[in-house]
Amino acid sequence: MKPKKSSYKILVAIDGSQYSPKALDYACKIAKIDNAQLQIINVVEEYFNVGQSILRQLDKTSKEILREYEALAKSLEVMHVSTIQARGNAPEEILKAAMREKVDTIVVGSRGHYRSKMDFILGSTSYKLAHYSKCTVIIVK
Amino acid sequence: MKPKKSSYKILVAIDGSQYSPKALDYACKIAKIDNAQLQIINVVEEYFNVGQSILRQLDKTSKEILREYEALAKSLEVMHVSTIQARGNAPEEILKAAMREKVDTIVVGSRGHYRSKMDFILGSTSYKLAHYSKCTVIIVK
Repeated sequence: MKPKKSSYKILVAIDGSQYSPKALDYACKIAKIDNAQLQIINVVEEYFNVGQSILRQLDKTSKEILREYEALAKSLEVMHVSTIQARGNAPEEILKAAMREKVDTIVVGSRGHYRSKMDFILGSTSYKLAHYSKCTVIIVK
Repeated sequence: MKPKKSSYKILVAIDGSQYSPKALDYACKIAKIDNAQLQIINVVEEYFNVGQSILRQLDKTSKEILREYEALAKSLEVMHVSTIQARGNAPEEILKAAMREKVDTIVVGSRGHYRSKMDFILGSTSYKLAHYSKCTVIIVK
């Protein structure tokens, strides 16, 4: 029998990069403190004007990533795990999900670098979450 | 007898504002997971060209804040607590202490607003820590 889940909610953003396993690991560590509900989100980013077939492929890959990370969280003994798939701009979709699901903490991996000067000025995903989130944000490095 | 402390180190930045108790609370929660060493830092900010007598008074207040938060952490059953007092620019001094002490996680409260447009552009303390820190950063809101 699963232990009763608490009302504490953690949302971990996963992008399939090398920083995601560390973010999941941290999120699981926190989730186990109060037997929190862990939600794993992956956003299919629509940066370019790609066609429907490519988007379908990206959706499929995203579902695979989510399944993989859900299994990983369960193997780390987190009892209450669910997944969210979104499409659009990563920080916006993460913030929307956090508001909708009323999460207490967002966990995100840091890329640790900026792809361009514009990224530095406008901010990366973690930077935007740190700024706009209404709840606690953990930037895992 | 104190349980053996782990090598995991958490640095929590306290400024005596209303956001500090929440940051300490979160830091204690994380510290208890692996019986980590909790270090509490307070920075006496040298924004203005203040005289020595005022700086002495600020140092005294800073020491009182640190003593208060150290006692609070101990009352929350964190076994290994120490304090750091610094003088200068808050994010710079927090980052320097984090590097020197080789901490694994920095915890900081978010003010949730910006005092000026310049603050928004250049970034608040939590913003700067999120960007420049080499280790995981928790922005408690």
